[in-house]
Amino acid sequence: MTFATRLNAAIVRKRSMTCVGLDPRRDSLPAGIRDAVASNTPDEWAAAYTTFCCGVIDVVADLVPCVKPQVAFFEQLGPAGSISLGQVIEHASRAGLQVIIDAKRNDIGSTAEAYADAYLGSHRAVADHRSVWGGDALTVSPYLGGDSLQPFVDVCDRRAAGIFVLVKTSNPGGGDFQDRLIGDRPLYGHVADMITTFNQSRRDSDGYGPVGAVVGATYPEQLMTLRATLPSSILLVPGFGAQGGSADDVKAARDDNGVGAIVNSSRHIIFAHTRPEYASKYGDDRWQDAVRAATLEMNAQLE
Amino acid sequence: MTFATRLNAAIVRKRSMTCVGLDPRRDSLPAGIRDAVASNTPDEWAAAYTTFCCGVIDVVADLVPCVKPQVAFFEQLGPAGSISLGQVIEHASRAGLQVIIDAKRNDIGSTAEAYADAYLGSHRAVADHRSVWGGDALTVSPYLGGDSLQPFVDVCDRRAAGIFVLVKTSNPGGGDFQDRLIGDRPLYGHVADMITTFNQSRRDSDGYGPVGAVVGATYPEQLMTLRATLPSSILLVPGFGAQGGSADDVKAARDDNGVGAIVNSSRHIIFAHTRPEYASKYGDDRWQDAVRAATLEMNAQLE
Repeated sequence: MTFATRLNAAIVRKRSMTCVGLDPRRDSLPAGIRDAVASNTPDEWAAAYTTFCCGVIDVVADLVPCVKPQVAFFEQLGPAGSISLGQVIEHASRAGLQVIIDAKRNDIGSTAEAYADAYLGSHRAVADHRSVWGGDALTVSPYLGGDSLQPFVDVCDRRAAGIFVLVKTSNPGGGDFQDRLIGDRPLYGHVADMITTFNQSRRDSDGYGPVGAVVGATYPEQLMTLRATLPSSILLVPGFGAQGGSADDVKAARDDNGVGAIVNSSRHIIFAHTRPEYASKYGDDRWQDAVRAATLEMNAQLE
Repeated sequence: MTFATRLNAAIVRKRSMTCVGLDPRRDSLPAGIRDAVASNTPDEWAAAYTTFCCGVIDVVADLVPCVKPQVAFFEQLGPAGSISLGQVIEHASRAGLQVIIDAKRNDIGSTAEAYADAYLGSHRAVADHRSVWGGDALTVSPYLGGDSLQPFVDVCDRRAAGIFVLVKTSNPGGGDFQDRLIGDRPLYGHVADMITTFNQSRRDSDGYGPVGAVVGATYPEQLMTLRATLPSSILLVPGFGAQGGSADDVKAARDDNGVGAIVNSSRHIIFAHTRPEYASKYGDDRWQDAVRAATLEMNAQLE
């Protein structure tokens, strides 16, 4: 089963388009986990990240189709963080979740092959083709052009994996280059065209290919346009909640069958114990209850 | 001392603009190192990468100003590869080399902070500000815009580090987006403008700022143009040798004082033992002699 087919099936089964972003940050961890870090070493923080992220996974696994570990925060701990990242991915995968590794990788062709081989391929997709990191999908940057994306698409084909190419990102500066007009269309439109070409001969019975697109919830107009111009791409929509995108904005990312899009929320869910409404109800000790409540709340908002 | 000042001083001291790319690939390792991998586990391959890369560093440290570990090949081994990468960076740094971590990272602002904190800062730059990975500089992708570059520049300021932003890459598809005209200039020209703005208030006595540019040797015309439009940027020039750029092409990347540019070569140097002219002379056993000879040859070509 291809990545797109698996992910859309999970969206239907869980009745949820929520993607839980696993962005561990030292200062926001629940007190009990933070206090266990006695000597402030990367090894100890990495163990805390594993405890925390696996604790999140345990309470969201039956509620959402996928999680998205943000590699930057693990790499911030050096090699110890890489060990933690591997543990978190495996835990999520065993919990039946699709794992989208958010690493925004790319390089020239022969080096891109190494990244694709490293990250793409979960044991649940094709038994013999689990990659060393074990992701179902990976986020990828398009600046280096088509021959830098090709090796990722090739590995997607071989290992039933997926990629999400940055098209229109959610940050305020996302338009600095992405919105600039080339001919009569913005740069991000040209990136979208390339994605469509890659998916053309690779569509599943629902019409979705392995190459998805990252489109920020903070630019609702472009999100609506891109839903129409990218009918074969699952959209990964960041920027909901903490970054400002509204529920109505992101619902436009779904297709007519209610699939084809996932909406990421990181801080709002995983650090729900720090939000006033949950802090008063659950406190730091019951942080997992806060995570579960925030996930259910987001599912309801996107119903 | 800023990164640009340190690197240019090293170029003068070593009389070399050669950057040795550390791109370990299993199949190309010398037989003696490959044969020591008995059970084909990531841990064993990672140990082999450490042995190999440190062996390269030992014979090039007095000949070149810098090395550039390509993170993709280490990540291909999973967490074990990350441990190896850390060891290789530390070994290079202790050998007095500037270490440019080639990871082509970036993300939205608050996440970019994590990447910047992770990679930028060597113990030789500012004693109290060694990052967990310990790099002097990092390669960075510009697609996400100015606010994604800002956190890297901020850390460069605090820790005397540098970044190299992808401007015009060396691969055949490098033009797919980078060459497209926005107004009357290609996209890469607009990226170059942003770099110049970042460097404006940050130039050292030679006129160089912390934000360098990646410009492929395979596009000599653009390389000449960009040397002129980026007077405050050290140019990192990949694509010499194996990828086809000539010595005359890359010499144009230097400024009038013979500094301000480094030229990367990976396979041609580190796997010199596989090149016919060196294989016959040194064989697999004396692979380090082949590395040293190839480095001296490249230095001479660029003299």
